[in-house]
Amino acid sequence: MIQRGIALFAVLACGAVAVGAQPPTLASVLAATSDADWRTPDPENVVYLDLAAGRVVFELSPTFAPAHVANVKALVREGYFDGLTINRAQDNYVVQWGDANERDTAKRRAIRGAKPTLPAEFDRPLAAGIPWTALPDGDVYAPEVGWSFGFPAARDPKAGRTWLSYCYGVLGAGRGNDAASGGGTELFVIIGHAPRHLDRNSTAFGRVLRGIELLSTLPRGTGNLGFYETAEQRVEVKAMRVSADVPAAERTPLQVLRTDTSAFRQLIEARRNRREEWFKYAVGKVELCNVPVPVRTPASR
Amino acid sequence: MIQRGIALFAVLACGAVAVGAQPPTLASVLAATSDADWRTPDPENVVYLDLAAGRVVFELSPTFAPAHVANVKALVREGYFDGLTINRAQDNYVVQWGDANERDTAKRRAIRGAKPTLPAEFDRPLAAGIPWTALPDGDVYAPEVGWSFGFPAARDPKAGRTWLSYCYGVLGAGRGNDAASGGGTELFVIIGHAPRHLDRNSTAFGRVLRGIELLSTLPRGTGNLGFYETAEQRVEVKAMRVSADVPAAERTPLQVLRTDTSAFRQLIEARRNRREEWFKYAVGKVELCNVPVPVRTPASR
Repeated sequence: MIQRGIALFAVLACGAVAVGAQPPTLASVLAATSDADWRTPDPENVVYLDLAAGRVVFELSPTFAPAHVANVKALVREGYFDGLTINRAQDNYVVQWGDANERDTAKRRAIRGAKPTLPAEFDRPLAAGIPWTALPDGDVYAPEVGWSFGFPAARDPKAGRTWLSYCYGVLGAGRGNDAASGGGTELFVIIGHAPRHLDRNSTAFGRVLRGIELLSTLPRGTGNLGFYETAEQRVEVKAMRVSADVPAAERTPLQVLRTDTSAFRQLIEARRNRREEWFKYAVGKVELCNVPVPVRTPASR
Repeated sequence: MIQRGIALFAVLACGAVAVGAQPPTLASVLAATSDADWRTPDPENVVYLDLAAGRVVFELSPTFAPAHVANVKALVREGYFDGLTINRAQDNYVVQWGDANERDTAKRRAIRGAKPTLPAEFDRPLAAGIPWTALPDGDVYAPEVGWSFGFPAARDPKAGRTWLSYCYGVLGAGRGNDAASGGGTELFVIIGHAPRHLDRNSTAFGRVLRGIELLSTLPRGTGNLGFYETAEQRVEVKAMRVSADVPAAERTPLQVLRTDTSAFRQLIEARRNRREEWFKYAVGKVELCNVPVPVRTPASR
């Protein structure tokens, strides 16, 4: 239903008439980027979830949840997740993996250097050195929203706090009712409308860069909250690995559009005012979670 | 990751102390509803999409898009959709079905009483008699949002217009670049974060009441915009039928929570302020598309 033709368009500005100039669209903004607009995530902050069906690639955010990032990497490096299962797929909400038997199993008891639980990192202090590209259109849930280091985020300048926002594809740490009962042994990804009520209620610490369709298409669990009810329904986690530990030939090379650039600000504008020919009405605003942060496979050299 | 335990809670109001009273949650609000809070949709406004995997049930809105509802029912009754296919599954966006070969095929030429295209019904005039339950928390895309006849909707009182909002599960009519090129021969459902930029750009005329997981778990198409690239990838539409035309024994009995009731207003409050024990922070606001309009199977009599 979306046919993204680009209309010829007369742009009038400062008395000049540029007939035939094209207003920016997502496609035109991306086409105009240079290599400097893209970054290669630090392989120490990239984690792979390898399933029989393929690989899901995550970028982690040590800025927003340093203890969780360190702990999940430690769990990954201890092989904690290898052989565990995807246990939950709740429609329009989350896919979750970890220890199907939860709490106090052999897997959990075998954790060595990593920690079974951590204090929550629901938010963090605002600080110099954290870049911020603001979205000016307001937000139902937070005083300010925007992007930082490639992640959708929110902040409250009065409270001096900032946090990642639970947009589609964001990676969170599951927990029980105790705020300090999480820590990374249970992980989930958002596969539906952004449940922003999880913001500041659950530690968000990364997002999917590629492969989310391997999770979002999983059969929904028929148990309460979308949990699978039998062992046969669960998909095995073949392995989780930190990209830096993987031989170069087995890595998935990806680049992410920088969010602190003019190119990204143009992309935001292109999403606030959709100018593709298909669109008849441009509201002139956009919601945080409706602005994608593009990911690409770098061209071979 | 969500464990919806309900904490014992001391409610203080008007000097009275009710120790042990529970603050409202989605579960408690639903448990307290009476039969009068639920309605049975008119079977003339309920349509089934029957796939080999099961049935998707839609409620249509003749209030918001009368011509499209009438035309889709006419197409359904002519058997237009029977034997056509699901042609597109774009992650975090839409699933779409219709004529894979598009435009001017035998199917389209065979349309009899129905119309191949219709003028757009992107919005409609505000009018007395259209109920409105307002959400007071603001919205990025529209001056006002709320619910009408069970559908998430928006309105602009200054312009005197109202329209359905493209939340998860909303049913729309595909079209080409011409606003009048739709009409119901191509249909799509939202399976990701609400693409509210489609509001007023695409005729929305219903929503899924049950079975969306049959669409949201479909393999994503690998072609441009998530279109399937081969005939083998497409899932057949066994039939679409208007519920009123289906023998009673083959219907799917469903009831929808009325959205013009005190019960629904309590449900909104329960979603604005999450009081389940798991939640540590209640923002006191909620986004339109994060308030579900509950559907139930009526108890057998």
